[in-house]
Amino acid sequence: MIAKRLQTTRATINDVAAVAGVSRGTVSRVLNSEVYVSDAAKKAVEDAIEQVGYVRNTAARNLVTRQSHAIGLIVHEPHSLFLEDPNIGSILLGTNSVLSDNDYQLVSLIIDSDRDSHRVAEYLTGGFVDGVIIVSARAHDPIARVVSQIGIPAAFVGHPVDIEGIPYVGIDNFSAAKAITTRLMQTGRRTIGMIAAGLDRDSGQDRVAGFTAALGEAFDPELVVKVPLYAHASGIEGMRELLARAPHVDGVFAASDAIAAGVLDVLRDTGRSVPGDVGVVGFDDSAWATRSQPPLSTVHQPAGQLGRRAAESVLAQIRGEAVDSAGTFLDTHIVWRDSA
Amino acid sequence: MIAKRLQTTRATINDVAAVAGVSRGTVSRVLNSEVYVSDAAKKAVEDAIEQVGYVRNTAARNLVTRQSHAIGLIVHEPHSLFLEDPNIGSILLGTNSVLSDNDYQLVSLIIDSDRDSHRVAEYLTGGFVDGVIIVSARAHDPIARVVSQIGIPAAFVGHPVDIEGIPYVGIDNFSAAKAITTRLMQTGRRTIGMIAAGLDRDSGQDRVAGFTAALGEAFDPELVVKVPLYAHASGIEGMRELLARAPHVDGVFAASDAIAAGVLDVLRDTGRSVPGDVGVVGFDDSAWATRSQPPLSTVHQPAGQLGRRAAESVLAQIRGEAVDSAGTFLDTHIVWRDSA
Repeated sequence: MIAKRLQTTRATINDVAAVAGVSRGTVSRVLNSEVYVSDAAKKAVEDAIEQVGYVRNTAARNLVTRQSHAIGLIVHEPHSLFLEDPNIGSILLGTNSVLSDNDYQLVSLIIDSDRDSHRVAEYLTGGFVDGVIIVSARAHDPIARVVSQIGIPAAFVGHPVDIEGIPYVGIDNFSAAKAITTRLMQTGRRTIGMIAAGLDRDSGQDRVAGFTAALGEAFDPELVVKVPLYAHASGIEGMRELLARAPHVDGVFAASDAIAAGVLDVLRDTGRSVPGDVGVVGFDDSAWATRSQPPLSTVHQPAGQLGRRAAESVLAQIRGEAVDSAGTFLDTHIVWRDSA
Repeated sequence: MIAKRLQTTRATINDVAAVAGVSRGTVSRVLNSEVYVSDAAKKAVEDAIEQVGYVRNTAARNLVTRQSHAIGLIVHEPHSLFLEDPNIGSILLGTNSVLSDNDYQLVSLIIDSDRDSHRVAEYLTGGFVDGVIIVSARAHDPIARVVSQIGIPAAFVGHPVDIEGIPYVGIDNFSAAKAITTRLMQTGRRTIGMIAAGLDRDSGQDRVAGFTAALGEAFDPELVVKVPLYAHASGIEGMRELLARAPHVDGVFAASDAIAAGVLDVLRDTGRSVPGDVGVVGFDDSAWATRSQPPLSTVHQPAGQLGRRAAESVLAQIRGEAVDSAGTFLDTHIVWRDSA
């Protein structure tokens, strides 16, 4: 069955006026619920609206108020991470809950290529959104620079190292990494390695610094394996490399739960028990942590709350309120399960 | 450090004209690259644009062409599934790749409450998007009805049972479910149960029908446990119920890989080996399938391709081309791994 769908030619106010047999002005007065319209004209317009399928163009109305009542959310993650990082979903839903309560529409914009970056930058400058929330921006991020230049209300979740003056919401990655590494040391581990990722961002750098600070004199840079992504596959790759460098490693701090899940897979495949032979800790307390075998000891990161606070900051800016242009840090805590 | 960010008052064409010391008309002629402008005026306008930070309002220009060059993507899934279903990410990225190649902006709209539904319906009718792709619509879906009424170019991924006339892209769930159940029977299993989900959609109903058809006279409705979601937690809940009804079950068809992962957890916790004691098969071939222990035998569903085909259909409708208003079915195949 092949059928041509009618091309959408949206009915205009002129169509309504013609069918109702009244002027455009009368249609407009009915639409705006003004009082100086006869009941007969009102009925004629309402019937005509139904007949021609007229829908008011909100984008046009927005030109008057210069507001779209939409907020963009931009997530900078490559394919693989977008698909597997439960934090991103939690941030998205946290953001949406605050915006929805305030009658704002969240529009999520994917960046998956340079072409996407350029088009999204144009979209942001085009009046389609009143504000923007940027998740996981990296150093030299072109979108973050555009946002900074056009002065649109904005907030970061996480903080790119090279952009100033835009509020951000994050966690204290240094202290959290130091705390969980210290806890791992207290279980009696002697040779502790780290699978580090995201080193082009504050978060990744700070987790390595916290790990280093916890170990103090016991720190050995050879035991820090750097991988590109906070991803399961990176965990597998990184743990293989760590075992090649140090077969007798007995503790691992993985920079994310997804990485830790990859670490567990490699340890199982090489016949090492967890936590018997090797203690493993992660970071995030995402769904990965509870589904791993054994469940992961990890740092709880308040992902939904990060999204909510970023949304609140953008709405406050739109209302013209004072906001903290520096960072807001939310609390983390350690959740100790069975992997260490 | 508390600093008030300047409220965004976007510079207008009037600001540019005032700073450049020319008329609005001259500014407009420069912006539109018209020829009857002196070099001096052109330079003055360009300098003024830079000085006041003027950015052209694309939304305003779109009113003339009645095109936003944006396409909405709506995913109807509750919290839990949005966070854990890798198919949705694949559909999203497949859609984005086609739209990006055609210079369309994908805007993803979250539906997480009735309030969201109403606001999204308004957004769709408001001229912000030229078309819409709807994933996982259920029966009686209010958004699908709005889309059908306003006649905006649209395509479904999957098919709500009660909406006609809008093209959709899907798979043959009946045949796929029948094929994998038959394969499971061929491994010698005698008491085969199913954990069924999504029964308010074609996909869920068709998977049960395929399972039923494969078993033929061996079918026992007591061995079909119905759960609300295609989710890991639903798999745990459903498998516990199935074991309560039939402790000697030796084969399980899970309606999704996430459900199958929950089934595996329950079997492990109750001391049953897989595939030794019980053979388990899933559906989707998502990341869950390869990460499970053991990796899942499952139906491969072309999620990225579903998104791409839906995007192509919407773009064709926007161009006014004929499209098939019935369904397009993409091929699936069985991937046999270690769980059965």
